[in-house]
Amino acid sequence: MAERYPLPDLNTLPEDIRDRILQVQEKAGFIPNVFLAFARRPAEWRAFFAYHDALMEPEGAGRSSNLTKGDREMIVTATSSANHCLYCVVAHGALLRIYEKKPLVADQVAVNWRKADISARQHAMLEFAMKVCLAAHEIGEADFEALHAHGLDDEDIWDIAAITAFFGLSNRMANFTGMLPNPEFYLLGRTPREKKPAG
Amino acid sequence: MAERYPLPDLNTLPEDIRDRILQVQEKAGFIPNVFLAFARRPAEWRAFFAYHDALMEPEGAGRSSNLTKGDREMIVTATSSANHCLYCVVAHGALLRIYEKKPLVADQVAVNWRKADISARQHAMLEFAMKVCLAAHEIGEADFEALHAHGLDDEDIWDIAAITAFFGLSNRMANFTGMLPNPEFYLLGRTPREKKPAG
Amino acid sequence: MAERYPLPDLNTLPEDIRDRILQVQEKAGFIPNVFLAFARRPAEWRAFFAYHDALMEPEGAGRSSNLTKGDREMIVTATSSANHCLYCVVAHGALLRIYEKKPLVADQVAVNWRKADISARQHAMLEFAMKVCLAAHEIGEADFEALHAHGLDDEDIWDIAAITAFFGLSNRMANFTGMLPNPEFYLLGRTPREKKPAG
Amino acid sequence: MAERYPLPDLNTLPEDIRDRILQVQEKAGFIPNVFLAFARRPAEWRAFFAYHDALMEPEGAGRSSNLTKGDREMIVTATSSANHCLYCVVAHGALLRIYEKKPLVADQVAVNWRKADISARQHAMLEFAMKVCLAAHEIGEADFEALHAHGLDDEDIWDIAAITAFFGLSNRMANFTGMLPNPEFYLLGRTPREKKPAG
Amino acid sequence: MAERYPLPDLNTLPEDIRDRILQVQEKAGFIPNVFLAFARRPAEWRAFFAYHDALMEPEGAGRSSNLTKGDREMIVTATSSANHCLYCVVAHGALLRIYEKKPLVADQVAVNWRKADISARQHAMLEFAMKVCLAAHEIGEADFEALHAHGLDDEDIWDIAAITAFFGLSNRMANFTGMLPNPEFYLLGRTPREKKPAG
Amino acid sequence: MAERYPLPDLNTLPEDIRDRILQVQEKAGFIPNVFLAFARRPAEWRAFFAYHDALMEPEGAGRSSNLTKGDREMIVTATSSANHCLYCVVAHGALLRIYEKKPLVADQVAVNWRKADISARQHAMLEFAMKVCLAAHEIGEADFEALHAHGLDDEDIWDIAAITAFFGLSNRMANFTGMLPNPEFYLLGRTPREKKPAG
Repeated sequence: MAERYPLPDLNTLPEDIRDRILQVQEKAGFIPNVFLAFARRPAEWRAFFAYHDALMEPEGAGRSSNLTKGDREMIVTATSSANHCLYCVVAHGALLRIYEKKPLVADQVAVNWRKADISARQHAMLEFAMKVCLAAHEIGEADFEALHAHGLDDEDIWDIAAITAFFGLSNRMANFTGMLPNPEFYLLGRTPREKKPAG
Repeated sequence: MAERYPLPDLNTLPEDIRDRILQVQEKAGFIPNVFLAFARRPAEWRAFFAYHDALMEPEGAGRSSNLTKGDREMIVTATSSANHCLYCVVAHGALLRIYEKKPLVADQVAVNWRKADISARQHAMLEFAMKVCLAAHEIGEADFEALHAHGLDDEDIWDIAAITAFFGLSNRMANFTGMLPNPEFYLLGRTPREKKPAG
Repeated sequence: MAERYPLPDLNTLPEDIRDRILQVQEKAGFIPNVFLAFARRPAEWRAFFAYHDALMEPEGAGRSSNLTKGDREMIVTATSSANHCLYCVVAHGALLRIYEKKPLVADQVAVNWRKADISARQHAMLEFAMKVCLAAHEIGEADFEALHAHGLDDEDIWDIAAITAFFGLSNRMANFTGMLPNPEFYLLGRTPREKKPAG
Repeated sequence: MAERYPLPDLNTLPEDIRDRILQVQEKAGFIPNVFLAFARRPAEWRAFFAYHDALMEPEGAGRSSNLTKGDREMIVTATSSANHCLYCVVAHGALLRIYEKKPLVADQVAVNWRKADISARQHAMLEFAMKVCLAAHEIGEADFEALHAHGLDDEDIWDIAAITAFFGLSNRMANFTGMLPNPEFYLLGRTPREKKPAG
Repeated sequence: MAERYPLPDLNTLPEDIRDRILQVQEKAGFIPNVFLAFARRPAEWRAFFAYHDALMEPEGAGRSSNLTKGDREMIVTATSSANHCLYCVVAHGALLRIYEKKPLVADQVAVNWRKADISARQHAMLEFAMKVCLAAHEIGEADFEALHAHGLDDEDIWDIAAITAFFGLSNRMANFTGMLPNPEFYLLGRTPREKKPAG
Repeated sequence: MAERYPLPDLNTLPEDIRDRILQVQEKAGFIPNVFLAFARRPAEWRAFFAYHDALMEPEGAGRSSNLTKGDREMIVTATSSANHCLYCVVAHGALLRIYEKKPLVADQVAVNWRKADISARQHAMLEFAMKVCLAAHEIGEADFEALHAHGLDDEDIWDIAAITAFFGLSNRMANFTGMLPNPEFYLLGRTPREKKPAG
């Protein structure tokens, strides 16, 4: 389906979008497809990445968070696997490996997070994320208490829920458009000491 | 759960957010709860409403769309019902009644869109939206062709998918925070000739 | 599909059926469609309404019940929403609003009963009704105990189960025949102090 | 759970109910438990069996039907298996074996009707019944046409749907009360030339 | 579909396979279809029955087990019903009746094991088997503890899981090939004091 | 859970099992955990690997097959992902990459086989495998015809079904015991020209 919504030429894009994309390319060595795929609609692109940054890089918005970068990518990977989104499992799985410094963790989280090599706190975090992903209307007090027991407060819980909800949007867009992950993502972080790409 | 995330005082909000909210209040006669509920995190608020506007008011982004305002609210109502989101079914169901000038259509779409009093084109539109909502990973060529047969092109299909995906995010946030619809929404548009509220 | 099973002319119906329908019409101001839709088969009509009355108007059968009229209509509304039955959600949602004197409660129960503005006892009652509706074969002792804890006894539990089971029948008949709610039902009880219609 | 709702003593029952039960006992040689289990609430009992008779013995209501007795019991058996109702699978499976004169057919229909030794017309009939049972809100024109292709008309289709809906009620009541089949039913019709029992 | 994979002539089979089949025939009085159906591929046949024997006749492998023969056939019957496998429900239901000396138990387990006339230990055993059958990836410590509470140790739990997993394979093969149970199985064990057939 | 069923010491195993394991180790450079995990029960081990070899290395059994080694591992990977089995997705995903000489294909098949870079014939093959895996009781003539249209005959279809069924067994055993993939598998075949490991 990818041909229905071809990736636009970088040079035809609005300057702010192009600048951000060039920055990402310089840092990562390649342009993750999502940056080009959504750019055909600039207003949506700007909103999507503003939302992404607000949730995934909260310091940039002057907000601190108890979730680590690894925690966040772990939520994205589990959510994207539940939604069968190839782009996001592969791209964010790569980031998860890098931030957690665990070359095996992304495949574990994607196939069956229940038996992944993660902390009890992360396990509780993913259990809640999966409920937001699959049955948000059934969330109740007991779900909050389970997270409080692991030292996560209501702002952390908002973070977990919002990241899950946002990537549910992203997963549906990627699946519907047939967006594919860049080949580079598949191998990233599978051996120790790799540096972070953008994305 | 609403007490976990209390609505902020309008006067404590950043100016741009407060201005938009006051505008909405003037137009609608009340402040839809979503505007205050999300304002406790300004960066997310701005991204959320920018995304909302890009999809729901495309003219504002200099883009035309073959979907009518009624079509769009119909997609939101069906999606929100599938996700059991009280806020969005009630608030957007009101807008759907008003734009379609059909006082009965929102309840029909919410309970069983298959037998709602809508056009064949709208029926196909909702069938696709429900697939994006519930099984986006199974979307294939046949789904596009079914919509083309009703005169909807690939840009319209992007609109349907993006609206469904965006309100999937909104539904999960509303469900998780326990956000409730303003009482005003329940009655809006249930009798002929009512004017449009914001939100 | 409604044309497959057209509503019969009132004058062609057996006298007992016609009399009851005229009574209902006098009380409600209109004839709820279910009375005509099922009348094409008089023997089934008589059994259906006898069963309906035995469960929904137990005093008529010389039996008292701890469930209020509002409780019963709440069970019907939740069941009918789970079964996606437009007729019953709209018609019995109207009765629910009126008996509970809560103009907002029917939409809340229909979209997500878990966050409706109802009592803890009613919440337990709906939880049990949903299990009868969706997985009756999994009902066990713990389900009875949960209701006893709210002061509901085994006769009340029979009431909850029987109402849920009976409207599961009604929902399937309405969905299969394409029966539509009378327009009058949509607005009933949405403002204070309306009186009860039949139906 | 059966002790919650003990079977009443036959002699304490209203005369009309006792008479019918004695008739059944004389014909079948035993009293099928459903007759006693529901008799604790006479008004519901009368409505239940009136409905049952209207659907399962239409000649009694002066109505002919293209469905044979075997067809009807086959629908009941498939429905009751989908609803995991032990009483109805065992009791109506016995009747199915007898009416169809096929000692193996009930187990086939209960475990996997798709590969049962039945006619193509019966296969289509069960396919429709299962849709009424599990997703009545999705029934559309194509479902009617599939049955017309096998010579079933709209009245036959009403019969199939109504029997499925009615036994959905019965299945939920039996499951909730823990009603058990009489031991006699298990063996009935498993060898050729047995005569029909009641109930 | 059975004609796609016709049963081979006994005389064309390799000697070891023919010998075993003749042994079974002598003991049971007939050849259960599974022995012929799988024999068209001798290597698979040998592995299948070696696996079967290792699990179902552990003494033969020099291993003792706390599960009785009745326990094992009960697991097979519940699993095969969950997988809608006619051959295995009928054939192993027969063995279950015989080993447990309960003519009614197989139908009870097949339709709704939760209300079957079995021990609390057997109920826990089937609850675990159903989780292995339907959601093995969700099994956790609590599931083991529930079985330990009934005196079942980790070797018994391995037995339960392995039998469930093995017959999941068998169920899928039988369903896919359209393998039908021999008529003899339907009646076996339905009256007291019958002797065991081969299986 | 792995500690419940600790891997046995290679030297304590029966000679035939130890010999095979040493062979595998020599070829692959490490011992895939499944070989040790199942060896604690020698009779089951022998049957498991005999079955595995009969399906996955048919030449060894003197049988040819139209399915390539890559086809077979693709079926295993898709099945194991549907069953959320970490061991098999990682181990057989590695073999899939190697046999197909496509470093990206295993992640594609595991996350969403519908959009993997595979042939139309392989797509049809996986569609059938998923039906065997998830709803074998619904398989009918149309499913066979869809595969015939891609040049697959009834023996190929048996292969697809049997591999899917066998790994459904393997997936359940691995999930229940908490068996984990060897770290070596995660990276295998992710760069061109790697040679085949065992297992």
